[in-house]
Parts: sequence; structure tokens; C-alpha cells
Amino acid sequence: MTHLGLIGVGVMGASFAQNLAENGHAVSLLDRDISKAQAVADAGADLAGDLIVCEDAQALINSLPQPRSILVLVPAGGPLDTVIDMLIPLLSQGDLIADLGNSNYLKTQERVARVEAAGLQFLGMGISGGAKGARIGPSIMAGGSKDSWARVQGPLRDASAKFEGEACCNWFGPGGSGHFIKMIHNGIEYADMQQIAETYGIMRDGLGMDATEIAAVFKSWMKGPLNSYLIEIAAEVAAAIDPKTSQPILDLILDKAGQKGTGRWSVIEALHLGAPASLMMAAVEARNISANKEGRTEMQAAFGASPVAMGAALGSRQEAIDILENAMIAAKVCAYVQGFEVLKRASDAFSWDLDLAAIARVWRAGCIIRSVFLDEISGVFDAGGHSNLALAPIFRDRLMATTPDLQRLVGAGVMHGQQVPALFAALGYHNMRRTGNSTANMIQGLRDYFGAHTFERIDDLGQAVNGPWHNTSK
Amino acid sequence: MTHLGLIGVGVMGASFAQNLAENGHAVSLLDRDISKAQAVADAGADLAGDLIVCEDAQALINSLPQPRSILVLVPAGGPLDTVIDMLIPLLSQGDLIADLGNSNYLKTQERVARVEAAGLQFLGMGISGGAKGARIGPSIMAGGSKDSWARVQGPLRDASAKFEGEACCNWFGPGGSGHFIKMIHNGIEYADMQQIAETYGIMRDGLGMDATEIAAVFKSWMKGPLNSYLIEIAAEVAAAIDPKTSQPILDLILDKAGQKGTGRWSVIEALHLGAPASLMMAAVEARNISANKEGRTEMQAAFGASPVAMGAALGSRQEAIDILENAMIAAKVCAYVQGFEVLKRASDAFSWDLDLAAIARVWRAGCIIRSVFLDEISGVFDAGGHSNLALAPIFRDRLMATTPDLQRLVGAGVMHGQQVPALFAALGYHNMRRTGNSTANMIQGLRDYFGAHTFERIDDLGQAVNGPWHNTSK
Repeated sequence: MTHLGLIGVGVMGASFAQNLAENGHAVSLLDRDISKAQAVADAGADLAGDLIVCEDAQALINSLPQPRSILVLVPAGGPLDTVIDMLIPLLSQGDLIADLGNSNYLKTQERVARVEAAGLQFLGMGISGGAKGARIGPSIMAGGSKDSWARVQGPLRDASAKFEGEACCNWFGPGGSGHFIKMIHNGIEYADMQQIAETYGIMRDGLGMDATEIAAVFKSWMKGPLNSYLIEIAAEVAAAIDPKTSQPILDLILDKAGQKGTGRWSVIEALHLGAPASLMMAAVEARNISANKEGRTEMQAAFGASPVAMGAALGSRQEAIDILENAMIAAKVCAYVQGFEVLKRASDAFSWDLDLAAIARVWRAGCIIRSVFLDEISGVFDAGGHSNLALAPIFRDRLMATTPDLQRLVGAGVMHGQQVPALFAALGYHNMRRTGNSTANMIQGLRDYFGAHTFERIDDLGQAVNGPWHNTSK
Repeated sequence: MTHLGLIGVGVMGASFAQNLAENGHAVSLLDRDISKAQAVADAGADLAGDLIVCEDAQALINSLPQPRSILVLVPAGGPLDTVIDMLIPLLSQGDLIADLGNSNYLKTQERVARVEAAGLQFLGMGISGGAKGARIGPSIMAGGSKDSWARVQGPLRDASAKFEGEACCNWFGPGGSGHFIKMIHNGIEYADMQQIAETYGIMRDGLGMDATEIAAVFKSWMKGPLNSYLIEIAAEVAAAIDPKTSQPILDLILDKAGQKGTGRWSVIEALHLGAPASLMMAAVEARNISANKEGRTEMQAAFGASPVAMGAALGSRQEAIDILENAMIAAKVCAYVQGFEVLKRASDAFSWDLDLAAIARVWRAGCIIRSVFLDEISGVFDAGGHSNLALAPIFRDRLMATTPDLQRLVGAGVMHGQQVPALFAALGYHNMRRTGNSTANMIQGLRDYFGAHTFERIDDLGQAVNGPWHNTSK
């Protein structure tokens, strides 16, 4: 039994506190609204561990054994810093503050430095799984002060999701590495969701299928390599009936996508690292464009709507659905190739020494992108496979088998105005990556012509030279 | 005649000093290497204005009339800040420091604040046109302390490029707005260059044309709407013969593209603003992937090369070339729609009150993206047209006429493994923008299912509601 503090008893905090108590741990609770903490303690009275309501920060601190460990589940940004500022003068050497919010990893880097400078410890922990996951077992990605990890890993592993008995909970590196990994988890989640939206669109607008038929297709994909939480819930979302109208609820949802920033952050960090992230980018951009419904309606009035029925362009309906499934498999591999490449670049750039296999392992259960596919990925990395997943035999074979259908789908999609930016991004990325002789010689020629930026010659590698241009006075 | 100071007599600084002197202005020169300044003064002895060599910063300052105006052309970042720190204690109230380097606009924001706090003035000026442009007339985009602009705009306009007699030189707003505009100029430049590389690739790999034939096609496009500096030099780059081997130099240039960061910055800022920038993104990503030549070669060995001959997929060669030209026209419109949308968003977000027509005007000559097309854009904005350029009649008509060929080209390109990320980005963007009923309802359904993020119903707009999901304990 471990005794932890927990500050911020909102939906996530309440769920996680109950989860810890259910696993036999004691949790001292603090919230600005003490009635919330009391309600959680009352609701959890039958759980194995104690839920102790604290009046103020000093009471929370007094209740905890030293060195103390305090989990903070308050909104990222200002509220979190307010809590940290409140705690620092009250805590003792070696005490731990752990942020379980959705913080930007750059802020976590700063907080680790600030809190450690005060003689304390700080962990930035990404947790995925939503409120339900927080209650029954989320995936936990920790980074920051390593010394403190040994103290809290027990209760956190108890509370986390399990994949074949193995806890989906780990510490990965110093600084903001935990929140960086959570950010890329979300970036991949954006890409997965956009691929689902695109295949949904092709079934709806290209193949003329209704929501119930589409639900059955997603459900059927659960039997193959696409088996994953997001495909599972896509089937449920498409199948759900609105009690008010008795219509599929999906047809009644306004097509303006929201976002909280982690997808955008992922792309920005990938850009800083020079790592391709075109699937995440396609997903972020699709959400951005969707949000401007008024602008889209105005454009449709001027230009006509884009998607048109695809007829038999992909063969029979079943043939088309098989092509869609293969295209999704190919695109999914590409999204994960990119995601792990970003993690690899970050690990190198920031000297985090990330264990990519361990990252894939904590994503196998509890989190939004959980899937059997991640077990295959961890297997490749565990076996010391190529850091480019596409070159691991299992994924190379899968890409070989499925990219022809991805090409066929994107080609037909383009010709019928379907929205396929993420599917194209996957195909375009894979094709550019396997093109030994690209067209960047033209880019280099232009750059040298107007800016004297130099280039290398293929018959004299390693020398930066200028071209024989006739524009003088460079 | 105006008397200015100029610090940093590298290639750009020397060229710009001579340009000012040729226009009758006096320039006091300072460089860490006094022999460089002396060489420029010697070479410019016959010019109308004086070039005065200064021994040190104090000598430079003593030589200038008050209030002083000092142009700085040193590398962005540390060297620039060193110069600013040196000047601040030596200058008097109201004196001006103008940075003509390629600074990140965020740094310029900080410098404006820092220099103004010292009672001085600061301008961040983007200049485009390379060394040759600096000598014969660049495009100049200034932002920062407005009070000082009146003092220096005379000589800067004299030195700048002219479009039909009008100087391509303006002040656009406070803070880092000038460097922001220059950054987006470069982002658009990336997109323009990537489109050229893609059409080049289709001609080379898809249509089997040699560099000389390709040069002739680019040259022929100078007679139509694509008329621009970059198309002009693409023709020259493709036509140039290597003196050593007598082969087209283009075939000898290594296909690893370099970049200095402004394209990446543009995409990052667009992401922060929520503005689509998929063409710039495609260009940055293509450069990133090209840089990993070894990885591409390894992937080609595993998967085979991507582009295959297109045969008659686009009709006869001339028909294919006409399709390429139209596709480029459509994609170019989309790139500029996106670029000006980013500027509009930045103007709103930062309260810069940017004059989009004036921006298009200073890009008509001197800079790398100069083209007749920008005169058409300034015309639309001057006439109070829609801030979405695609809806201005001239561009709507052009898109209507050319997007069918863009679709045909991208569709055929995809089916033949050609590299078309920017061309796809244009088509995909245009199609998503004109799709009133998108697939973001699926995104919102999934987000609400796993995270209770809520959505709006189309039959009850304005209310954030949850769906009838069967996953409990949200």
C-alpha cells in the first residue's frame, strides 16, 4: 500500500483516485471545491484503499508520509503552475510533484528544471484513455526526475491498463519526454481518426452506403490487422441510433471538428526535428478546414460540391471494401513509421535514449490508439529491428501486399473528388521514401541559381559547387 | 540625398551599399574586416553617392546626421544581437537600427520592444532578391517602429525594385510584421519551387523527356499565366550545359535539397494560426525526405523505385504538357490562396492591420516569387475583393478552367507513382474547401465517444451535446 496525494478532483482526478483506492492505495484528496473531494471519498467508501479529504494544501502535506508524492490533475498551463507555486514552499527536500495533465512537453521541461532547482522532484506524465481509462486502467507515459519513479511506479502500474498481464505504464526519460511521447500518441491518434473519416467518406459519398452498412464494414475489420479501439468505436458510432429521431446519430452530427492542440503540436515538433509527419498534418488540416463550415458552404455554392459517386471504379461493393481495408492497412503502417521516426529523432536530438519498444508496449492497452498492431511494433523493436519500421520484414511484407490497393483507392478517390488527404499522404510518403532518384536536383538548381546556395554533383560528391548559370554578380 | 550607416559588408551588404550609392545616397560602412569596407568603397568610387569607410562604431555614429539611421546586414541571431548591444549605448534618442537580415519575426518582435525601451527605433525588414537583387533592386518588406519609416523610405524606395515605376518597398505594420511577410514570401517560394520540381519529375520520369526538352516547356510557359521569375530560371537551369561533361547540369546535381528554415517557420506559424498551408508543408516535407538520400536508396532496394513511365495516360506529349500547364496554374492559385489566408489570419491575430493588396504589390518585382500573377492579386484586393482569393471572379474562373486538368494529372500521377505531393495538396485543399458536407462528423463522433468532447447536432445548432453511446462512466 502506498499513500499518495492527489490535487484536482475533476472527472479525471476523481476517476484516477478511485482507481488507486480500488487497488488498495491510500489517496489524500484536495480540490478548490471540497465538496467534490468529499463526494469522491463517499462514492469510494467501499474501495480497498482510503480516500482522505483534505481541507487545504497544508493538511494534504501533513497527511502524507515522507518523501511525499503528489499527483496533480488540473488543467494544463496556468492552473498547474498555480498549484506548483503553492506546493514548492510547503514541501520538503525530495518530495515529488507529478503532473498528469495534457501539458506541452516544453513547459514540462521548464517545470522539471524549476522544481528540481527547489530541491524537489517532478514527473510529467501523459495519461491516455479518457475518464473511463483513468477509472479502469489508462496507459501512462512518464518522464522527468528518475529518482522519484521508483517510489510511485508501484501504485501507477497497479492502476494502469494491462496487456497480457503487463502494465502499460513506464518512465521513459528525463525532462519532458513523457509528455512528448503522449503528444505523439495523440498525433498518431489524429492520423488514425482521419483515415477512418476518409474511408467513411468514400463509403458514404463514393459507394452510397448508409451508416448502418458502414458500421458493419468497420466491425468486420476488427477481424483483421486493423483490429483496434478506434475501429471498434467507429463501428459503434456509425451504428448508434438517435433516440429522438430514430436516425443514425452520425448523420445528425455537425461536421465541424474540434481539437485541443496536441495534433498541431506534434506536427510542429516534427517540423522542428525535420521528421516527416504528413499524415498527422493531413489530419490537423482536415480539422482546420472542417471548422470553417460557412466558408465551405460558400465555396460549394461557387464551385459545386466535390465528392461524386464512384460507381464501379473500385469494382463491386465487396471488392471496393476489400480495397479500402487494404488501403487502411498500408496507410496505418505509414502513420506509425512516421510517428516512431519522430520519436527516434526527438530521442537523438534531446539525448533522451528512448526505448521505442517500451513505448509501443505501453500503447498496447488503455490508450486511444491501442491495437494488436502495436504488439507487432514492439516485437520488431525488441528484436533489434530497423528503426525504419517499413523495413522490418513483417511491415515490409504488409506494405508490399497492400500499397497497390492504397494506390488504386487514392487514384480513384482523386478522380471522384473524394477527401483522401491522409491516404494520399501515406502513399506519397511511401513513394517518395522509396525513390532513390528524386526531383530535388531541380530544387537545388533553382536555389543555386537565385541564391548561390551551392549543390553537390553526383560525379564529385562532398564538394559544394555553383552551377554554370549566366546570371552574373552573385 | 540621405546619409545612412550600414553595418556588415558581406555579399548582401556590399551589394546594397553600392545600390544606395548608385542612387545618390551617402553610406557610412562598418565591418569587422575594414578591408572589406574599403574594397566596396573603392569599387564604388564612381557612383553618385559617397561610400565612407569607418574604423569603428563610434566613427560610424559620428559620421551620421541626427537622428541617425543604421542598416544592419549581418547573420540573423547572435551576430545581429551583438551589433544591437554594441549600438544601443552609443546612439541617441530617436536613432534607428534597421535589421535587413532573415530574422525570425518572433525575434524581431522582441528586438523592437528592446530597442524601443532604450529610446531608439527598430525596423525589421525582409528583403528578397538575393545578392543580385540587393545590387539592382530588391523587394523590401518593413515592419516595426513606424516613426522612423518616413526618414528612410526615400532611399529604400530608390534602391528597391520597381514594377511599372512603383517601388516594391513598403512598411506594413508594427513589431515583426515585416519579417512575417518575408517568411510567408519564402513559404510561397517553397510551394512554387516544389510544383516546378513535380512537373519536372513528371516530364522526366513519366513522359521520358530530357532536360533540353523540359527547358523548352518551361520557357513556353512564360507566355501564359505562369509567367514568373521561377519558371524563367527553371527553364535556364534545365537548359544549362555543364562545361566539364557537356551534359545538362541538371542531370548532374545531387537530389538532396537544402533549406534554411523559412519554409518550416511558415508552416509552423500557419499551424499556430489554424490556417491551411498544405502546399508549403508538402514542399518542406519533400525537402526533408530528399535530404535522406541513403534512406531512399535503401527503401528503393526493398520496395522498388516509385515513378513509372506514364505512356499515353495523359494523351499525346503535347496534350500532357498542356495538362501540366493547367495543373500548375490551378495549384499556383491554391498556393497563393493559402499564403494570403495565413497573412490575413496573422493580421487579425496580431492586430497588424496588414494591407494585403500592398503586400502583393511589393512582390511584383525584385523578389524570388515575382510574377504577373501578383499584379492580378493586388488588383483583386485593391478592388475590395473577397479575402478568399479563390472567390474573386478572375481566380474562380481560372480554377474552374484548370482544376479538371489538375485532377487528371494528380490521378494519373498517383497511378504511376509520380511524386505529386504539392499538386495533390492543391487539389485536396480546393476540394475540401468546396465540400459543404464533410466527413468531420465521424471525427466528432469518435471524439465524443472516447473523450466526451461533445458535438453539435445539425437539427439543434449551437448546443454542445453528447451522443447515445453505450460506453458508460464518461
